[in-house]
Amino acid sequence: MSNAESTLSIFSLGGINEIGKNMYVVQYSNDIIVIDCGSKFPDESLLGIDLIIPDMSYLQENKQKIRALVVTHGHEDHIGGIPYLLKKLNLPIYATRLTLGLIEVKLKEHGLLGESQRVIIDSDSNINFGMMQLSFFKTNHSIPDCLGVVFHTPEGTVVHTGDFKFDLTPVNDQYPDIHKMAEIGQKGVLVLLSESTNAERPGFTASERIVGQNIEEAFSKATRKVFISTFASNVHRVQQVVDAAIKTNRKLVLLGRSMVNVVTVAQELGYLSIPEGMLVEASEINRLPADRVAILCTGSQGEPMAALSRLSRSNYRSAEILADDTVIMASSPIPGNERNVAHIVDNLFLLGAHVIYGSGNVTGMHVSGHASQEELKLMLTLMKPKYFIPIHGEYRMLHQHRQLAVSVGVQKENVYIINNGDVVDINDSVARQTRKVHAGNILIDGLGIGDVGNIVLRDRKQLSEDGMLVIVITLSKSEGIIISGPDTISRGFVYVRDSEDLMKDVNRLVVTTINSLQEANVNRWNVLKQSIKEAVSQYLYAKTKRRPMILPIIIEV
Amino acid sequence: MSNAESTLSIFSLGGINEIGKNMYVVQYSNDIIVIDCGSKFPDESLLGIDLIIPDMSYLQENKQKIRALVVTHGHEDHIGGIPYLLKKLNLPIYATRLTLGLIEVKLKEHGLLGESQRVIIDSDSNINFGMMQLSFFKTNHSIPDCLGVVFHTPEGTVVHTGDFKFDLTPVNDQYPDIHKMAEIGQKGVLVLLSESTNAERPGFTASERIVGQNIEEAFSKATRKVFISTFASNVHRVQQVVDAAIKTNRKLVLLGRSMVNVVTVAQELGYLSIPEGMLVEASEINRLPADRVAILCTGSQGEPMAALSRLSRSNYRSAEILADDTVIMASSPIPGNERNVAHIVDNLFLLGAHVIYGSGNVTGMHVSGHASQEELKLMLTLMKPKYFIPIHGEYRMLHQHRQLAVSVGVQKENVYIINNGDVVDINDSVARQTRKVHAGNILIDGLGIGDVGNIVLRDRKQLSEDGMLVIVITLSKSEGIIISGPDTISRGFVYVRDSEDLMKDVNRLVVTTINSLQEANVNRWNVLKQSIKEAVSQYLYAKTKRRPMILPIIIEV
Repeated sequence: MSNAESTLSIFSLGGINEIGKNMYVVQYSNDIIVIDCGSKFPDESLLGIDLIIPDMSYLQENKQKIRALVVTHGHEDHIGGIPYLLKKLNLPIYATRLTLGLIEVKLKEHGLLGESQRVIIDSDSNINFGMMQLSFFKTNHSIPDCLGVVFHTPEGTVVHTGDFKFDLTPVNDQYPDIHKMAEIGQKGVLVLLSESTNAERPGFTASERIVGQNIEEAFSKATRKVFISTFASNVHRVQQVVDAAIKTNRKLVLLGRSMVNVVTVAQELGYLSIPEGMLVEASEINRLPADRVAILCTGSQGEPMAALSRLSRSNYRSAEILADDTVIMASSPIPGNERNVAHIVDNLFLLGAHVIYGSGNVTGMHVSGHASQEELKLMLTLMKPKYFIPIHGEYRMLHQHRQLAVSVGVQKENVYIINNGDVVDINDSVARQTRKVHAGNILIDGLGIGDVGNIVLRDRKQLSEDGMLVIVITLSKSEGIIISGPDTISRGFVYVRDSEDLMKDVNRLVVTTINSLQEANVNRWNVLKQSIKEAVSQYLYAKTKRRPMILPIIIEV
Repeated sequence: MSNAESTLSIFSLGGINEIGKNMYVVQYSNDIIVIDCGSKFPDESLLGIDLIIPDMSYLQENKQKIRALVVTHGHEDHIGGIPYLLKKLNLPIYATRLTLGLIEVKLKEHGLLGESQRVIIDSDSNINFGMMQLSFFKTNHSIPDCLGVVFHTPEGTVVHTGDFKFDLTPVNDQYPDIHKMAEIGQKGVLVLLSESTNAERPGFTASERIVGQNIEEAFSKATRKVFISTFASNVHRVQQVVDAAIKTNRKLVLLGRSMVNVVTVAQELGYLSIPEGMLVEASEINRLPADRVAILCTGSQGEPMAALSRLSRSNYRSAEILADDTVIMASSPIPGNERNVAHIVDNLFLLGAHVIYGSGNVTGMHVSGHASQEELKLMLTLMKPKYFIPIHGEYRMLHQHRQLAVSVGVQKENVYIINNGDVVDINDSVARQTRKVHAGNILIDGLGIGDVGNIVLRDRKQLSEDGMLVIVITLSKSEGIIISGPDTISRGFVYVRDSEDLMKDVNRLVVTTINSLQEANVNRWNVLKQSIKEAVSQYLYAKTKRRPMILPIIIEV
């Protein structure tokens, strides 16, 4: 049976060797199931880029085979790319109620709500897609309603964990389906795909419940207003903030668009329980006694335009942090955000606030949503897979996850550490990784999808470091002599008023360069421009050790 | 005596509300002593800037009063600004032997060695500067030969700790002068300035010695080559690497310019003891058995051009990391460098190396050089100051340091949390903070010192995010009609080949704008240019959600 018709193929279009833009594919024969379609934020080297999504050309080329997009949970790195996918392909989306609710907010913003086909599933669903049958199991994570996905194929069973931890004392009864997982493992798992975010972290991730206790204690101690910032999508934590506010007799104000959006969806769908009259508008803050109000806001990652950052700069229209108010940072900075978060803390102290900040285990105001090493071993032990593909992590995390798998009995040669696009093919229970499909990044800048390439980014980098110098010269068409100019316009290079001499020297150099070329009877524009560029660039580097972009503009009249 | 003639004034020109560019001033009457002159690296918002140093205009304006620059130790954030200071002012530098050795490397690079006046001091030195007498005490830190400075003034005693920890089992007998500190405190300290880097960190910083034990153990276990990366200036740790190499019978190779520089200076001055024949060139690596060589390299902070980063990309000419080599990261990433360090670890795992990485307390391969909370309390207890000024830290650290001071008995109102430039004046033992001197950042870009201002940076930011569009039009001088153009040149905005239609629309819009202004008889260039800018900018934002810099160039012939 070793032919393409009966091959089980597994690969990733995003999410491996990176944190973000998760997108995995399980294909059996002519049936393709896509799992998740996330986005990620660019690092600082991608100047001006707003968002990155997976290159989906493989899916476009095979669109007649795609049966469904199954979404494990509602985080941006799993749903952020969906609007862009739907603009290219029409495929049905399967997800739990809350996950779909959050996807719908996104589709609405892109004007895609009417056209899309959406199916609500839960952990008891069983769906047939061609020769594959899908079933699910509940996991828990820092957002409710998360699923692991089980693919029953003629070749064997494939399990995709989604994002998970094992919180055995969860908030809102979101227990993980441990018995179901054990049963799946007992029946035999051919391939396990398991997330690797915390594969470097020893031990067992703490329960969300301890955060609730600490929030309640801080609310009780606070003598004036309490501001608390966390991820809007962490509905469990939002519930615990609501509960703490109830217990300490405070009204609750929501600040920040994504906080209002998520709370609205979660409340409508019954994932959040907030008593009537508890939520009040920001305009009410000053009418209430200071010890009767709590403010739940976005910006826990230090995002400069989010509520907490603006509050810390006293730059928020409808609310103000005053001396002796309490501010709780119920989050840990994601790598890369440490400085922004630290500067907010600086500003909050300057305002005289009591600030509860620091890493999760110090303050008890945050726990991770991802499985640590002992939980990853637990998942591997429950599933007892023959083959293991660590996913959802950078290389060192995948590497550590492999060590964990081997430590609980997976054969080392049966662990596939792959890149996005590397395909693991399985025939007759034997896996091989030899072929690749196209995978990559699509950069989104403003309304442009994928129109910013390497040349544009390289130009932005040069412009950002040393600016540019435009040199305008008018030449007579007949004799090739200079009629006017050179005129230099500098942007981002030096402030011209301070550099008149430098600019005069540049102008003289341009004249000399043109004249010497005229004498040699060379007046093709490209040669002229290139010679000016080189001469000016060399001169400026010697004088300033900077390399601005030189843009000669030659007008012939 | 309450007049300027007998006033003791203390302030900072750099180092407060920031980590870096330390520079403090103690002035009594007409005598000024400057402590340290550091630099700092820009954050990513300062596009293209290489280095930041303190604005020294106060010192230039008062140069006849300056008696000395006293340097507490040889780290960049305490010595990096010295060449720029010496270019403006001729003042004698007082520092210990190693500190001066490192300063001299720097002065040589700037061609300033011949002109400068340098005085070697040690912890027993006593120097009179006008009405002030200076004495010193030994501290320990992550570089040898550190000093705390004591200013004996008619108004009372001022103590500046420099950077310190209390390592009671230090390497190379660099013990802190605890008895001397106790004696200074016993005699009475009017003002203490103490560093705040680790004021947020509970407990007592671990001893450098434990790092040595762990390095030795890792060297023993390694079956092939060992690469180890740390700060070049951490001479204690370099010594421990040397010792581990001796014990495990390995030759030592140094990679990276700053590693070679610092080791050379430290060895010449007797701060490092390396047996004859132990150091070998990189070219020897392949001639030695793999288990007989260790490589000490720069790049522990993930700097892309440093040795470790290049090694991790197999992009270093004279050395190569192979499977089963061991790589030790003997450092913690400084906030902001986490991602770069993590990517190096990814690459090292990909090469098949055994990588020992992670935060200091996990691997035992790094300890901080700065005092944690209990040590800060110990310093405050030893010195028993009347007034306390926390220095060398961002605001939240200063705030925490104040809490620590209050907890050991300093009066809260006697703690001055100041900004750079805020002056604490003391007359008749009474302190007041009411006046300011000028303080600020000088940005260094290439050879330019301070010539990059806000306008240039704002332009760089716009250029980096959305690029630019140059629009060239030739108008006839007489009639004002368009002779040639508009021609558009785009850089960093969109790749023109993909955007021909957009560019055609822009050209049409420019023509319409010019014609409508001509009809209204408006042809002043500025109005014309401004109208083109606005029209094109609005159009492009609507079409692309980007705001490139628009640069209209109008040629009249």
